[in-house]
Amino acid sequence: MIAANNPNLKSWLAVPEGSDFPIQNIPFGVAATEGDSPRVVSRIGDHVIDLKAMFDFGYFADLHFALEDFDTDSLNNMMRRGKQGTRDLRNRISELFSEEHELKDNQNHLAQILISVDKAEMLMPVKVGDYTDFYSSEQHAYNVGCMFRDPNNALLPNWKYIPVGYHGRASSIVVSGTPFHRPKGQQRPVDAEPPVFGPSKQLDFELEMAFVTYEGKPLGDSISTKEADDFIFGMCLFNDWSARDLQKWEYVPLGPFLAKNFASHVSPWIVTLDALEPFRVSGPVQDPKVFTYLEYEGNKHIDINLEVAIQPENTDEKVVSNSNYKYMYWNMNQQLAHHTINGCNIKAGDLMASGTISGGEDTEYGSMLEIAWKGTKPVQMPDGSERKFILDNDTVIMRGYSEKNGLRIGFGEVKAKVLPAK
Amino acid sequence: MIAANNPNLKSWLAVPEGSDFPIQNIPFGVAATEGDSPRVVSRIGDHVIDLKAMFDFGYFADLHFALEDFDTDSLNNMMRRGKQGTRDLRNRISELFSEEHELKDNQNHLAQILISVDKAEMLMPVKVGDYTDFYSSEQHAYNVGCMFRDPNNALLPNWKYIPVGYHGRASSIVVSGTPFHRPKGQQRPVDAEPPVFGPSKQLDFELEMAFVTYEGKPLGDSISTKEADDFIFGMCLFNDWSARDLQKWEYVPLGPFLAKNFASHVSPWIVTLDALEPFRVSGPVQDPKVFTYLEYEGNKHIDINLEVAIQPENTDEKVVSNSNYKYMYWNMNQQLAHHTINGCNIKAGDLMASGTISGGEDTEYGSMLEIAWKGTKPVQMPDGSERKFILDNDTVIMRGYSEKNGLRIGFGEVKAKVLPAK
Repeated sequence: MIAANNPNLKSWLAVPEGSDFPIQNIPFGVAATEGDSPRVVSRIGDHVIDLKAMFDFGYFADLHFALEDFDTDSLNNMMRRGKQGTRDLRNRISELFSEEHELKDNQNHLAQILISVDKAEMLMPVKVGDYTDFYSSEQHAYNVGCMFRDPNNALLPNWKYIPVGYHGRASSIVVSGTPFHRPKGQQRPVDAEPPVFGPSKQLDFELEMAFVTYEGKPLGDSISTKEADDFIFGMCLFNDWSARDLQKWEYVPLGPFLAKNFASHVSPWIVTLDALEPFRVSGPVQDPKVFTYLEYEGNKHIDINLEVAIQPENTDEKVVSNSNYKYMYWNMNQQLAHHTINGCNIKAGDLMASGTISGGEDTEYGSMLEIAWKGTKPVQMPDGSERKFILDNDTVIMRGYSEKNGLRIGFGEVKAKVLPAK
Repeated sequence: MIAANNPNLKSWLAVPEGSDFPIQNIPFGVAATEGDSPRVVSRIGDHVIDLKAMFDFGYFADLHFALEDFDTDSLNNMMRRGKQGTRDLRNRISELFSEEHELKDNQNHLAQILISVDKAEMLMPVKVGDYTDFYSSEQHAYNVGCMFRDPNNALLPNWKYIPVGYHGRASSIVVSGTPFHRPKGQQRPVDAEPPVFGPSKQLDFELEMAFVTYEGKPLGDSISTKEADDFIFGMCLFNDWSARDLQKWEYVPLGPFLAKNFASHVSPWIVTLDALEPFRVSGPVQDPKVFTYLEYEGNKHIDINLEVAIQPENTDEKVVSNSNYKYMYWNMNQQLAHHTINGCNIKAGDLMASGTISGGEDTEYGSMLEIAWKGTKPVQMPDGSERKFILDNDTVIMRGYSEKNGLRIGFGEVKAKVLPAK
């Protein structure tokens, strides 16, 4: 077992009941505090842990890190140390914050190291090199196929052979809390008529998880499903905002473009794949049989409870979906093997998202398109208003956590408010 | 007129007849020489000019540059100085290498500054943040539509409203001269049967030009067609390798993925938009009328002669296409305005490619798919062999230059050899 995963560990730092961040989590992020430059941090309970300060005090002296891995505005440098490097670091942090370690009595050091979570501004954790979005939930693909084609031909012929994916825009991926403006663009509301231009009328969220990669292999080499775990650093929540009306008009034949690239949001904490190991589960039987390069052994899916809430301005939020990451048809190992089977190279800091994660029940759908079924089943909000899609000044919040045998490892949340079009 | 564009300037450095690099060009690139680290360079005739050495000698002391702009392995730092900064730099280089400047007699300095072109290894000029590929040649879109649909419905309904584009893979963009392996992947040769797996049998080139951007505006803001020139640093040749059989099976509904992301090649010299100003021409009449945000004033197309040659191993090359960048339906200003109309942000070092550039004659088509018309018109090679697509060990070479009133500004070439699948 990875030392930091020991379920019996307790931290000398208080961890509130139901926290996403017990000592078994040790996620990584980037934070700024008033007057200080951005630095790499971790978190236990409601304390943010300044890893630059810890490096300065020599706590990582025997590990293979340099100041530039922590005194920086992204996790990219740190990730270049690879799986073993970051695993050693997580184990070390776990050790230092476990019961009986003398750090707990070093008030001088703790004054530098610990930051209250409400004093830290969480920044974009990763400089995303390339961003790929998959389309790996069968229920989501089926739902979309039912709405836009018919239930008998809902899944396209390639869907069960290929973990379908496409390239997205990295520059417009921003961290939770960053408000953004409703996108403008071309739409064609009536098929027989010319398109019109204006703010999107069908702004939607997509409930997704994303994983962040370590540096991969050189161009021309592939990563097998067996090797894939060693190239995945960790995961976060991901809201792949989509303007359905822009997408419908633009996406044939080369895929979504302006319908997606105006903004995507990530949660600020990258939870390591190591920390999620206890929550591995088996995936669905894949029929037809997949090509050899997509076969895998062991449990490669992960049980992560997910929810989406909409909060209209000045009122309570309403949870509109409860889904689970385990519903994926294709797992991360298959996605990465597919992505590289042609020799495509991946880099430290690439981000790969799952695609909308929908479960089999209509309470488990991962987008408003599905929840309100193309606008035919509007959702009631606490203030009496209705939602078919997302309105101006709505805030959308996604949360996720794994739980088993009393251990809860969570992601916190990704939230963002939609401002009116500029 | 931009000072460096003066057609009467002559350099005290010899410029061979027909060179792509007269003193009116002054392109930018990144080079390494034996034993020296990569640095930013320019070129006149067959001399590479070491701009780091020039900075060290103080030749740019009054300009707004720092050592890190030149002592680095990409143009990204330099590009952050913006349009005026890089224009001043190009003008300064022009001045220093024009007749009568005393630099020509400073043998100590010249020994550091000048590198023979055959001693410099040209590297990838830009760290590409995001890469977008457009689809902006009407003839190409029409040809593809004729082959896969029918001539009466060759252009899709959105094509004349939208400069159609999609996101591509940045990590696998490499510099001219980098060999690569034929990609493997899923294909479905017979529609009614299951797919098969293996090396692509339909590897193709796409003749494209690409432009590199300066740092843009914040997320949420748009760049108008009028402003676009100020956000474009320069251009290069671009070979958007495509595996047609992989693409056919994978691309519905989310666009090309593994069919493109195994490798794309750029020419090493970025020719500034400033240097191309003398070659501006008008574009086609656009009917239907475009939306207001896509309207533009002045000549925004550019006359750039393009050619593609195939060189089978151990034999002469054969030119298989002569096209021209002026054939674009949508120009760069429109592409950039469209890309940002929804608030998408661009960064210094983003690369945006034109899409395959095909002219109206069948000698002007920009891909083997079109030249050999889906394999029905194989092309004869000098060694007697035939090509429907690109074979193992073939080298594909693209060249481009503008010429007017005796002034020739060129791009050199982008070439790459296809190795057998791994």
